[in-house]
Amino acid sequence: MTDINELDTPAVLIDLDRVEANLSRVQAYADSHGLKLRPHIKTHKLPRFAKRAIALGAVGITVQKLGEAEVFADAGISDIFLPYNIIGPAKLARLKALHGRIRIAVTTDSAETVEGLSRTFAGSATPLTVLVECDTGMGRCGVQSPAAAVALAEKIANSPGLAFGGLMTYPAAGQVEANAAWLAAAKQALTEAGLPPSVVSNGGTPDMWRAHEVAAATEHRPGTYIYMDRSQVARGAGTFDDCALTVLATVVSRPTEDRAIVDAGSKALTSDLLGMTGFGLILAYPEAVITGLSEEHGTIDLSACASKPKIGDKLRIIPNHACVVSNLFDRVTLISGERVVETVAVDARGRVD
Amino acid sequence: MTDINELDTPAVLIDLDRVEANLSRVQAYADSHGLKLRPHIKTHKLPRFAKRAIALGAVGITVQKLGEAEVFADAGISDIFLPYNIIGPAKLARLKALHGRIRIAVTTDSAETVEGLSRTFAGSATPLTVLVECDTGMGRCGVQSPAAAVALAEKIANSPGLAFGGLMTYPAAGQVEANAAWLAAAKQALTEAGLPPSVVSNGGTPDMWRAHEVAAATEHRPGTYIYMDRSQVARGAGTFDDCALTVLATVVSRPTEDRAIVDAGSKALTSDLLGMTGFGLILAYPEAVITGLSEEHGTIDLSACASKPKIGDKLRIIPNHACVVSNLFDRVTLISGERVVETVAVDARGRVD
Repeated sequence: MTDINELDTPAVLIDLDRVEANLSRVQAYADSHGLKLRPHIKTHKLPRFAKRAIALGAVGITVQKLGEAEVFADAGISDIFLPYNIIGPAKLARLKALHGRIRIAVTTDSAETVEGLSRTFAGSATPLTVLVECDTGMGRCGVQSPAAAVALAEKIANSPGLAFGGLMTYPAAGQVEANAAWLAAAKQALTEAGLPPSVVSNGGTPDMWRAHEVAAATEHRPGTYIYMDRSQVARGAGTFDDCALTVLATVVSRPTEDRAIVDAGSKALTSDLLGMTGFGLILAYPEAVITGLSEEHGTIDLSACASKPKIGDKLRIIPNHACVVSNLFDRVTLISGERVVETVAVDARGRVD
Repeated sequence: MTDINELDTPAVLIDLDRVEANLSRVQAYADSHGLKLRPHIKTHKLPRFAKRAIALGAVGITVQKLGEAEVFADAGISDIFLPYNIIGPAKLARLKALHGRIRIAVTTDSAETVEGLSRTFAGSATPLTVLVECDTGMGRCGVQSPAAAVALAEKIANSPGLAFGGLMTYPAAGQVEANAAWLAAAKQALTEAGLPPSVVSNGGTPDMWRAHEVAAATEHRPGTYIYMDRSQVARGAGTFDDCALTVLATVVSRPTEDRAIVDAGSKALTSDLLGMTGFGLILAYPEAVITGLSEEHGTIDLSACASKPKIGDKLRIIPNHACVVSNLFDRVTLISGERVVETVAVDARGRVD
């Protein structure tokens, strides 16, 4: 079998043993707390890993785009959650087509979205399940209060073609208590209004190990946990030994004693800093700092390194954010240890709508 | 013809009239100064625009990856400059195959790269043209002094299978005088050493209108000029009316009075800030600030806007950095005014190696 160091660069390597360990560890945690797991596939975009997560006990998957739902439905996944406001005739038609094939649910945070969904699904044999998205602290989408969640749930319940499915949030990292309190209050208000939520869907890898503290939640949607990355390690969600995705890069220039340039720039690692210093961790040179990226060059400061790489050396880099790396490569290479298992297409890469 | 507002989102729109104006304006500038133009295709990744630039007078194109060179060679472009250290057996074999089909030149900044090139091209019917990359202030690749440029030029000239082709730099933005002085000194030193450079290739859109001040330069390699973007406008290279690439996005949520969420996140606009505040300019709401991006959501602060968009509205956004947007979309839509002309594949998108 080929050694990974024989691969051309830049290349994305996925360590299958770490993937399996990450999937199993988080599923076991969820099982131990009676929480359902509905992993987000945005991190890997590969049906094979979604199927493996389901085989281990996940109840279905989460996607962020209709195009992703279509790829995973084509691959045989039959229970998909798309937590997004689906708007406009083209997307509503695609959603309706998916609804005819698989079990799919969406979210909303506005009357406008509910009305578009209802116009599309009125008269359907099976109503579309719609959850209310809640802004429990993230400051992105979502209704702003438990009272607003009740009002929107009532609107969904009263809309032809739709069924109220519960609550969904993508919480702010580190705000577990506030998230838990928000969802508990909303659940209670809904129950009092005669609309007890059958699903309360919480998300995110950063606080995944505290998911059981969010008592109202019935399911959790981690994404990055399958690969982990430098930002998740910084947040304590895992260790560098859990990181399954690395970018293999070649040192193409050593212009000065303390500077190296690799062939992985923002087109391989992305510009995501996520509050950190440097654009990734170089496994063999952890003291090195990736100080800058242009599209095809990564600039590395080696001044803190006792030994330094030479031109032609291949380096493995743990990126700051694994999900965005998966979206940049048409193909990734599955590995076991230092050996290449298979190079595969990233089926749902680049599904922008 | 379809109106752009009927397109599904997110979508990348390319204004053909502005493309033509940008190509013509910069070619006319280069012509007026006797400077050759060798545009970088990384911004658009579309052979049609490379051909148009050549029809207007460009001497050839610049690419950053072998995969890009292969796409453009297949499309009929016969003069390609690949300013990169090409390293490793796989890439050297691909370079040799290209060299057998078209006129191609590369750069180097090290003896190691020269030796690999010479091993590959020794015995070729036609030598490979190799330029010396110079670090004139950018702090990325490149030899560190004119004396080092001479030494490496001599090594190229003495290497079987290679021909010394001149100097290349990608200069630091705003350092025109320092760049000019560096190249002038290197040119003089090479001439004194009996190796006068036939090509001195300067690059970049930010200082493109001052390219003629770099007296030693024989050619210029602008890239972003064809589309322009928010960062180039900030640097004074053009105006917002020159920007040919916009991202069309839909407002999917209005969770608060002052917040809007659009369906263009970092998977559409990228996280590139390039020193600016906000992730793009919204044409219809120039006072709005795109304060944050997650992969599929753009968060907009509307507090400075007198009128505010509503759910379902479509917004056109000038991104901070056009080149990286081109790399994220499999297809872009060519437009004229507000009318759709054609949706085309981005042929060289995602060519990572």
